[in-house]
Amino acid sequence: MAPAIAGAFFTAYNQAMIILGIDPGLRTTGFGVIHKQGTKLRYIASGTIKSGEGDLPTRLKVILDSVAELTVTYQPDCAAIEKVFVNVNPQSTLLLGQARGAAICGLMSATLTVAEYSPTQIKQAVTGTGKAAKEQVQDMVARLLALPGLPGSDAADALGVAICHANAQGALAAIASTAGPSGFALHMKRGRLVG
Amino acid sequence: MAPAIAGAFFTAYNQAMIILGIDPGLRTTGFGVIHKQGTKLRYIASGTIKSGEGDLPTRLKVILDSVAELTVTYQPDCAAIEKVFVNVNPQSTLLLGQARGAAICGLMSATLTVAEYSPTQIKQAVTGTGKAAKEQVQDMVARLLALPGLPGSDAADALGVAICHANAQGALAAIASTAGPSGFALHMKRGRLVG
Repeated sequence: MAPAIAGAFFTAYNQAMIILGIDPGLRTTGFGVIHKQGTKLRYIASGTIKSGEGDLPTRLKVILDSVAELTVTYQPDCAAIEKVFVNVNPQSTLLLGQARGAAICGLMSATLTVAEYSPTQIKQAVTGTGKAAKEQVQDMVARLLALPGLPGSDAADALGVAICHANAQGALAAIASTAGPSGFALHMKRGRLVG
Repeated sequence: MAPAIAGAFFTAYNQAMIILGIDPGLRTTGFGVIHKQGTKLRYIASGTIKSGEGDLPTRLKVILDSVAELTVTYQPDCAAIEKVFVNVNPQSTLLLGQARGAAICGLMSATLTVAEYSPTQIKQAVTGTGKAAKEQVQDMVARLLALPGLPGSDAADALGVAICHANAQGALAAIASTAGPSGFALHMKRGRLVG
C-alpha cells in the first residue's frame, strides 16, 4: 500500500491549480488569482471591483456579476475568501455582510468550492505572524509572487487569501497521505480535512 | 395638461402588477407574492426557503437559487425586501447580512427593481401602527388578502413587505400626478420619488 499512498500524495500535492482569492467589501472588493504547482506559486492577476455609487441592490449586483465574470475569465479550480471583521458599527457590519454574501454568490454561481480564512490565518500564512501590519502583508505578497512592485492593499489581501489557501492545500495534501483515526485515508472537502 | 396628467395618474395607479416580497434570514427566508390592481390586492403564493445544514457558501447558494427560481415562477414586476434588524450579537448580524445579500442577488439576477422597507414601515402599512405584534401582522395580512387561515410568521412578514410596497406604489402614483418643486413632474425610481 505504501507506494500507492505516496503516489497519491505526490499527485495531490503536485497537482496544478488556479486559486481565486477574494477580499470582500461593499465599496471595494479585492481579487487575486494565482497558479500553484507543488510549493511553486505564480502570479496571474489581481485588482479591485468598485461597486459604484448606486443604491444597495445595484451595488450588490455589481459585486455578484464582477466576481462571476472573474470565474469565467480565469477559470479557477477553487476559491478562498477572507472572513470579515465585525465592525464596531453594527450598520457597517450589516453592509459588509451583504457585500460578502454577494461575492460568495458570485463564486458559487460557478459552482466553485469556497474556503474561508480569518485575517489572522492569512497574515500567518503570508508573513509568518498573525499580527503583521498591512504593509508587511503587501511586501511579503510581492516577494512570494515575485511582483515588480507592491500591490494595492485590497489586491494584496486577496492575493494573501489565495496564498493562504495554496499553503493549506499543500499541508492538507501532506496530512491526507496518512490514514485518519478511523483507519480510512483522510481527504479534503472545501479546504477542510475530513476522516 | 390637466386631463393628460390625470390620465397618466389613472394608468399608473390602476396598472396591474405582481409584487414579490422577501423576508430575509440565513436559516429561513420568507417569500410572498401578491397581485395589485388599483387598491385591490390578491394573494398569489407564499412560503419559506430553508437553507439547510450545509456550510455558509452552500446555504447562500440555496437562497440565491431559490429566490431566482421564484422570479422565474411568478414573473414579478418588482420586488420588495425587509430591512433587517441589527442583532445584539455582531456575528449574527454578519450572517444575516450575508443571507440578505444572497436574497438581493437572487432578485437582481432577474434585473428586478428592489425596494427596501423597515419593519416599522411594514407594520404601519399592514396594521396601521408601527409597533404591532407579530400576531397582529399575521392576522391583518390574512384579512387584507382574504386568506382562509393565518400564514406562518416568515411568510406573513414577506407578504407584509409586498403589501407595504403595493401601498407605497399607490401613494407615490397619487403624488407623482402633481408637479415636483422643480416644476417638472415627479416620477418613481426603485420605489422612491424623484423630482
